[in-house]
Amino acid sequence: MTEPYWTPETLEEMVSARSKILGPAVWAAATPDPRQLISFAGGLPDIPSLPGEQLLRAARTVIDREQKEALEYGGTYGPAPLRDAIAERSTRIEGIPVTRDNIIIASGSAHAIGMVCETLLDAGDYVMVESPNFPGSMRTIRSFGAYQVAIPMDEHGMRTDVLAAELQKLADQGKRAKFIYCIPTHQNPAGCTLSLERRHELLELARKYNTFVLEDDAYGELWFETPPPPSLFSLSNGDHGIKVSSFSKIIATGLRMGWIAGPPALVSRIAALRYDMGSSPFLGRVIAEMIRNGDLDRHIEGLRRTYLRKLERVEDALGRYCADYATYVRPLGGFFLWLQLRPGMSSRDVQVAANERGVIVGQGPQFFADGQATNHLRLAFSYVAMEEIEEGIHRLGEAMSEVAARSIAK
Amino acid sequence: MTEPYWTPETLEEMVSARSKILGPAVWAAATPDPRQLISFAGGLPDIPSLPGEQLLRAARTVIDREQKEALEYGGTYGPAPLRDAIAERSTRIEGIPVTRDNIIIASGSAHAIGMVCETLLDAGDYVMVESPNFPGSMRTIRSFGAYQVAIPMDEHGMRTDVLAAELQKLADQGKRAKFIYCIPTHQNPAGCTLSLERRHELLELARKYNTFVLEDDAYGELWFETPPPPSLFSLSNGDHGIKVSSFSKIIATGLRMGWIAGPPALVSRIAALRYDMGSSPFLGRVIAEMIRNGDLDRHIEGLRRTYLRKLERVEDALGRYCADYATYVRPLGGFFLWLQLRPGMSSRDVQVAANERGVIVGQGPQFFADGQATNHLRLAFSYVAMEEIEEGIHRLGEAMSEVAARSIAK
Repeated sequence: MTEPYWTPETLEEMVSARSKILGPAVWAAATPDPRQLISFAGGLPDIPSLPGEQLLRAARTVIDREQKEALEYGGTYGPAPLRDAIAERSTRIEGIPVTRDNIIIASGSAHAIGMVCETLLDAGDYVMVESPNFPGSMRTIRSFGAYQVAIPMDEHGMRTDVLAAELQKLADQGKRAKFIYCIPTHQNPAGCTLSLERRHELLELARKYNTFVLEDDAYGELWFETPPPPSLFSLSNGDHGIKVSSFSKIIATGLRMGWIAGPPALVSRIAALRYDMGSSPFLGRVIAEMIRNGDLDRHIEGLRRTYLRKLERVEDALGRYCADYATYVRPLGGFFLWLQLRPGMSSRDVQVAANERGVIVGQGPQFFADGQATNHLRLAFSYVAMEEIEEGIHRLGEAMSEVAARSIAK
Repeated sequence: MTEPYWTPETLEEMVSARSKILGPAVWAAATPDPRQLISFAGGLPDIPSLPGEQLLRAARTVIDREQKEALEYGGTYGPAPLRDAIAERSTRIEGIPVTRDNIIIASGSAHAIGMVCETLLDAGDYVMVESPNFPGSMRTIRSFGAYQVAIPMDEHGMRTDVLAAELQKLADQGKRAKFIYCIPTHQNPAGCTLSLERRHELLELARKYNTFVLEDDAYGELWFETPPPPSLFSLSNGDHGIKVSSFSKIIATGLRMGWIAGPPALVSRIAALRYDMGSSPFLGRVIAEMIRNGDLDRHIEGLRRTYLRKLERVEDALGRYCADYATYVRPLGGFFLWLQLRPGMSSRDVQVAANERGVIVGQGPQFFADGQATNHLRLAFSYVAMEEIEEGIHRLGEAMSEVAARSIAK
């Protein structure tokens, strides 16, 4: 038995249709860079704010109080104390009654979005997506063989007039979209927030064309000065579909914990399809304790102040170093500032020139369902160290200056 | 917008083919019973042994030493320190060189098995499965629309002669199985262990018929007096396919952490299809610390002694109360004892009669890929409290006596 009976090449004939769609490339693999980079790339929380001590304190309480329940299977829906804590908190924040039956715990919102796709999508189905959009979600939707219809955005969020036209176009062909995927609040990457008027329009369209809404709310709680409009979940009284949220941005991405809120009939179909025996009851109960003892709310208040300070510092530096080359609409919360370069400047060129100066920014076709990048850069201001912002934007300005000079020289 | 535009009934036309296969029933939902039951039902670890303090100590170390890495995304493959710790430990236990590239972290072995199915299975594919078998895995395989061919077992494990015949039957039709799913060591539910000779036969069949092996090794380390034969993974030098393992039975089911070991080309296809951004780096690093500081190995040694004592107590009581009605082959490890009732006695009747006496045992068609239950009961001796075993088996014996009397009376 020394001859291998299969090879990485013949493996291709063994894998599933979904695996063939995605191919062998692993997404979001770590690519360490030996240089000391200033990164505006990743949608990651502020490092000094990571609440390790609060997590440990909650873990101590959980082990002392409920070790057995925390260390045993917690069921497909996730541990009841966390579902209850989320329901109470959602009732308070959303202003509609939310109960345990509306909630299922997921291993992060990316996992939650995947479970929704598993439950609703077959190959050949249609999904409406904002463009630009979070690449991870588009990749997941694509893996199920679904078509994505890109709906453009402006400073008020998804263009509901275009959405209406595209839904009608499908209806004219006797088809319908399975759901509308959107990040209505502090969007990734565009930073914009869907206006209240458009939220109502979007929900009416969902109803008229009999499709669900998949509302990705990873950043909703991280507003800076004014709370955003009510969620689509709240405006539709929890009936339109699914809202997915995450503890990644409000506690830590390293927990891999999030949740789904939706109507019980749809939530239970998601639970029925689940094969992983539920997300960690241990982590779930630790988070439930952080909600109950007030640590989570206090932590979020601190994060709002921290991210506002970081945004202000970025804006201050942009005003000094980049004002000639780029404009933006100020985000009301979240992690991202979406810079539009002046005509003639290539965002790819600026990204490369910045990288040569040790500064990383986001850009490119991966943010667009149709693969057609616009002339934008994504600046994540959440992760970069406060004291590096000035220097980072300074270098970015030099990169822009160089690219602008080159584009004039052409 | 007060009229709902969809109902739980119309939802059925929206859900995916996979969701339709499984239907709305949620598997393994908690069904609390108000009575004080003696349970031989669940494959759960011993409660007093749950290592909460060791987990907290490791968590303290991780937060002190590597809070940033533990609380940030850890990549699709899972945190490197855990992959390295598993690789070193596997090299020691398996006796073949295992590196980080062979390992991907999963959110429990049920999740791992689901990821393997996502990577390999399309509707209409074939999978060979031991019968009886773990219902959760069969449910997952079924959800992908795959056919399961039930291979019977005897006291030496899967009948490789039947496996050979079934693989040949498929080959005669121009088909092949995508993989052979088996729990070769301390099988769930049958308790048996595949003999070394049959392990070699199984691997040769996999090679001859060009199929993979999916080896589920959740119980492999929990041997009592003698270590089991080498794993299929070890015997094939890591080439035959995938071995999935879990920290559920050797630490706690409430963590939802496990791993896959296999050839890098296949492991990377699994990573490429993953959409959940990896299992928890925080939990992963906590477990890595428990491996590094020796706590895991010490804990497993303690578990072996505990489960052997429990098995001995069960056997002692079976000898006194059930010897007239049932026989079994002594398991060499794991959680399960598979009782064969004497001819004419119905395992369903015994289960019901035991339940009336406050004792729960496992039984039924859910253990069988073809839905045809044999005349067996599954006794999980892992979870029941040591001091309740005698009383539980006493009542089980009474239940058997009642059913035997009834079957004679017929």
